[in-house]
Amino acid sequence: MKDQVLKVVKIGGKLIEDKTKFQEFLKDFSALGGPKILVHGGGNFATEMALKLGYKTKMVDGRRITDADSLKVIIMTYGGLINKNIVAKLQALGSNAIGLCGADGQSIISKKREVKEIDYGFVGDIERVNSDFISSLLNQQIIPVFSAISCTKEGELLNTNGDSVASEIARAMSSMYETELYYCFEKSGVLANAADNESVIETIDKSKYRELLDEKIITDGMLPKLHNCFQALENGVSTIFLGNSALLQSKTKHTKIVQ
Amino acid sequence: MKDQVLKVVKIGGKLIEDKTKFQEFLKDFSALGGPKILVHGGGNFATEMALKLGYKTKMVDGRRITDADSLKVIIMTYGGLINKNIVAKLQALGSNAIGLCGADGQSIISKKREVKEIDYGFVGDIERVNSDFISSLLNQQIIPVFSAISCTKEGELLNTNGDSVASEIARAMSSMYETELYYCFEKSGVLANAADNESVIETIDKSKYRELLDEKIITDGMLPKLHNCFQALENGVSTIFLGNSALLQSKTKHTKIVQ
Repeated sequence: MKDQVLKVVKIGGKLIEDKTKFQEFLKDFSALGGPKILVHGGGNFATEMALKLGYKTKMVDGRRITDADSLKVIIMTYGGLINKNIVAKLQALGSNAIGLCGADGQSIISKKREVKEIDYGFVGDIERVNSDFISSLLNQQIIPVFSAISCTKEGELLNTNGDSVASEIARAMSSMYETELYYCFEKSGVLANAADNESVIETIDKSKYRELLDEKIITDGMLPKLHNCFQALENGVSTIFLGNSALLQSKTKHTKIVQ
Repeated sequence: MKDQVLKVVKIGGKLIEDKTKFQEFLKDFSALGGPKILVHGGGNFATEMALKLGYKTKMVDGRRITDADSLKVIIMTYGGLINKNIVAKLQALGSNAIGLCGADGQSIISKKREVKEIDYGFVGDIERVNSDFISSLLNQQIIPVFSAISCTKEGELLNTNGDSVASEIARAMSSMYETELYYCFEKSGVLANAADNESVIETIDKSKYRELLDEKIITDGMLPKLHNCFQALENGVSTIFLGNSALLQSKTKHTKIVQ
């Protein structure tokens, strides 16, 4: 089966918020040939919904603290509204999709994050991806669409970092397929100058990565994203691409991450 | 495959609202042997959520009118919160479940209800159930858990009557399995006297059904439920059972519907 290329695509929250760009992205995703998997974030939808419901969103170091109310909102918005709407839109584009969270078919099993300095609440760190179940869907020409929710072995739903969901799925599937990982987000890739969307660094290998870390060019949200990327490359994923919604059709400059 | 008995179980909204009874029901459901499918309503969760969000729920003749806001709430609560929580609870009980709406794997294709006297809004009438896809899950020992949401061929999500979802799934699956349909709700079955929960009519066949209709013993919500039942029996479903949450373990009196 290793002769087939599997594409695991993560779409970031800010792209989902922009209706036009999101629809373009789904068209491009739908047009991709071969087996593929979509992982989505949820952007501000959960925050907005929590606000409407009178729940306060607690953040520490740019990370959401997931209390019981937040988890409820995340399951409703990411696991329900956004996930099912993506599936329906893909069906409209002729792509047979299925919307999943980690509890479905025990697809993404996690462990609740231990409380150290910060109690992140109902947050999961992924332990195991059920690659057999996911490949059984792919073999039926069905496109799995994952919201970033995992589940413990004991059946507890947990909020999970979307980038990690994508990279862990890609890692697990790489034993069966040649696997490419795509991170689509609001920028054109990893930027040499954060203020200049044209300053895309086109290729990053391990030595370039260390250089960029030393020069503090990689900061904030890009830090865990690139850390995830190199972990995935070390664990079987062949190539990783970062870029905007046009990335899937290679219409624009983007960043390619290689070992 | 017809030697296998498939159980299609619908659980009503009011049972889901009662945490203790709901957990008991899930234990009983989890303990059922053989292939099985769960279909759930959502009870007052959608109405409560709509209220919290400041949306008004419009009812005509006891039926919810599904405007765009209501549909959003239904997808969030039934398709997200309730569906994923049921799946997680089943996983906790050792049952490998998957949460689906009609858009997932094109499992339940419907048509938007035509506007005649009443415009029901975003409401679907089922046209086709994807029995091949559902049986592929059953063959993997996975339990499909359906929220009462269907999808048009054009990819539009629609609110759908939960009893109809259950009976249409049972009808479609009856070409592959001997199929039994279970309606679990807050009463002990079809009652001869609505005020007396002990007055269960234990068996209803077609002539008894006509009699009960003539005597106006079957009224309100029981009318479409029994209409669905006899349609299902005429289309391949072998037996239908109606009763409370203990029905699955045959612990209490219940109603059996036969041709």
